[in-house]
Amino acid sequence: MSNALADLHPVAGFRLGTTSAGIKTPGRPDLVVMEMAAGSSTAAVFTQNAFCAAPVIVAREHLARHQPAYLLVNTGNANAGTGDAGMRDARQCCAALAGQAGCPVQAVLPFSTGVIGEPLPAGKIQSSLPMALERLDENGWAAAATAILTTDTVPKGASKRILLDGQSVTITGIAKGAGMIRPDMATMLAFIATDAAVERDVLQDCLLAATEKSFNRITVDGDTSTNDACVLVATGKSAAPAIEKNGLNYELFCSAVTEVCILLAQAIVRDGEGATRFVTVAVDGGRSSDECLDVAYTIAHSPLVKTALFAGDPNWGRILAAVGRAGLIGLDMEAIQIYLDDVCIVRDGGRAPDYTEAAGQQVMNRKDITIRVVLNRGEYSEEIWTCDLSYDYVKINAEYRT
Amino acid sequence: MSNALADLHPVAGFRLGTTSAGIKTPGRPDLVVMEMAAGSSTAAVFTQNAFCAAPVIVAREHLARHQPAYLLVNTGNANAGTGDAGMRDARQCCAALAGQAGCPVQAVLPFSTGVIGEPLPAGKIQSSLPMALERLDENGWAAAATAILTTDTVPKGASKRILLDGQSVTITGIAKGAGMIRPDMATMLAFIATDAAVERDVLQDCLLAATEKSFNRITVDGDTSTNDACVLVATGKSAAPAIEKNGLNYELFCSAVTEVCILLAQAIVRDGEGATRFVTVAVDGGRSSDECLDVAYTIAHSPLVKTALFAGDPNWGRILAAVGRAGLIGLDMEAIQIYLDDVCIVRDGGRAPDYTEAAGQQVMNRKDITIRVVLNRGEYSEEIWTCDLSYDYVKINAEYRT
Repeated sequence: MSNALADLHPVAGFRLGTTSAGIKTPGRPDLVVMEMAAGSSTAAVFTQNAFCAAPVIVAREHLARHQPAYLLVNTGNANAGTGDAGMRDARQCCAALAGQAGCPVQAVLPFSTGVIGEPLPAGKIQSSLPMALERLDENGWAAAATAILTTDTVPKGASKRILLDGQSVTITGIAKGAGMIRPDMATMLAFIATDAAVERDVLQDCLLAATEKSFNRITVDGDTSTNDACVLVATGKSAAPAIEKNGLNYELFCSAVTEVCILLAQAIVRDGEGATRFVTVAVDGGRSSDECLDVAYTIAHSPLVKTALFAGDPNWGRILAAVGRAGLIGLDMEAIQIYLDDVCIVRDGGRAPDYTEAAGQQVMNRKDITIRVVLNRGEYSEEIWTCDLSYDYVKINAEYRT
Repeated sequence: MSNALADLHPVAGFRLGTTSAGIKTPGRPDLVVMEMAAGSSTAAVFTQNAFCAAPVIVAREHLARHQPAYLLVNTGNANAGTGDAGMRDARQCCAALAGQAGCPVQAVLPFSTGVIGEPLPAGKIQSSLPMALERLDENGWAAAATAILTTDTVPKGASKRILLDGQSVTITGIAKGAGMIRPDMATMLAFIATDAAVERDVLQDCLLAATEKSFNRITVDGDTSTNDACVLVATGKSAAPAIEKNGLNYELFCSAVTEVCILLAQAIVRDGEGATRFVTVAVDGGRSSDECLDVAYTIAHSPLVKTALFAGDPNWGRILAAVGRAGLIGLDMEAIQIYLDDVCIVRDGGRAPDYTEAAGQQVMNRKDITIRVVLNRGEYSEEIWTCDLSYDYVKINAEYRT
């Protein structure tokens, strides 16, 4: 298991080609074509935002009609809020790639990320396609990971190899995203490929389970993007037997896919806009998963908790106040315990008797912190990942379009 | 109608006395005693946060048992998350005031605001009560408005006189609050008095109606405080006839109380922590008030919208994305229009054809901005008030305890 870009294992049957189309910044790599071998199957999840971008609409439509052969990804422009013109632009880019690659237009799925509401420079994209196709390479992961970024400061990749019936199976993925992160089904853009042989509906089940425990457990700012998409491609080039639903191999495979997704999701939070701390919010002892998640997200979205985390201030009162407003019926605040890492800061509705500011401060000086809330009223637990709210978050988002 | 402190009309039968108890900062006025004449009635609403402060618990308890005679307010310490000791401290302060004033302990309602989780310096408060009592004065509103502040930068007061059956009735109020503002029943601290004669249940109905349209329509950061309270006292000293439920005078009176509450609520948002802009979010054409409010609060809480407002960037894509994730069932994004003041920025799911960045920029350069979303699917409308998210919000909340 590795998430260093240099260690991304190639996936047989999956090639990536990157180039610069000059969409926002001349010379910056911003266009990626991904090609999957014939016989591949593809699973995908998309944003649940009712306002979704043109490429999301087109990708859903194409996926429903045809097995994909190509993924076409651009950064620098989200092609969202662009109306009919945006739909035309997305279809035109797909048609251009289909024409050059010799496949049906529905075999191309488009993905865009960047500024909302600007017309997509479809001409620039189309004229750069030949170069991207020329560069298609199974070792193209690292270049692609860099090309899909927007406000991200580091590229994000993860890779894992497992043995199924003694045969090696590889899973490699890349992702982008740093702001507008509160995925609801999928996050931002993530592209994952495996050489396992997996039928499409089995692959889709696996992807849903994996995203539920990874991309759907992170938040930077609570804003769900218009362009979220996560794609999982299985090329079937591994010598391992095809993965059937509900067998041991399915469990092993799914667990490995989930691990890759968690690494990518956590990498997004670590690179959250302006983030200086990586924060795990764990909630134990709830009556349901939903109420655990309600508490966790209320904490993770509280600007007061997030600014205290930025300041390295163990301000447990703000955490307790967030728990109190999470909307849980009949919540007994006296039964709650709250921990910062292994330090108990709240017990019996107030500061824990043995808690000292020095002990809290010691935890807060760390870059990775776990806030654990024990509700003591049920058997459910949930865990999500978030980051703090810093000057730089404001700066990045105040200056984004300038 | 006025909200200048110098213009706060005294209310016959209601006196305020302010002093410094040195709770957080030596010499700073931080303690206020308010006294109402015998025969007054009192209405109050409190925070819905499950984690509520000791004074809120004690005030609710006392109010249920006795007509209040005194309100005891301190700033600098919220007495929240302080467990049993906090309850004892709140009761002790009430008992001390009751002893000096010669009334039952249940006739004193305590209110605290400030840092969460620190022990209340009850001794300092008790020894400062004589001075506060000595200073009781019907013209004490301005001094009290200043003494109850925490991170507020300006004191907040509003005053109105109306005629009921030819007799003058005065309504005067003060409020504090700048952060942790997402009231849920009431906000932060607000104290309003009138010389009208109003029975307690009629007064409570009026206060509920007024807060619903004022304090329950504002948000700075989405964080509901542990100490919210809003109190309305009617001394009955006016020559106007007693106000009966459902008469014309009730309507006139309630409308005047609501106006005072709206002025105070808007003053809180204008003074929101780090706020540089006052933003009205209006949603028209919804199927219910609730869905209008869901859309309005999703916009008002979006860090991306708030940072764009700080930057003066007419980034309509972020507003549209917030509408899209507000959770409305069957929402047709194509039917939506969005306006910045009188400039239409979104129509048919994208940028309005006649919109120019220059026109949007002109609105954004203003300090008071209205974002109006027209959903075009029903007859309901709602309006809330919020502010932007600036460097200073982060600074104020990162440095609050240092």
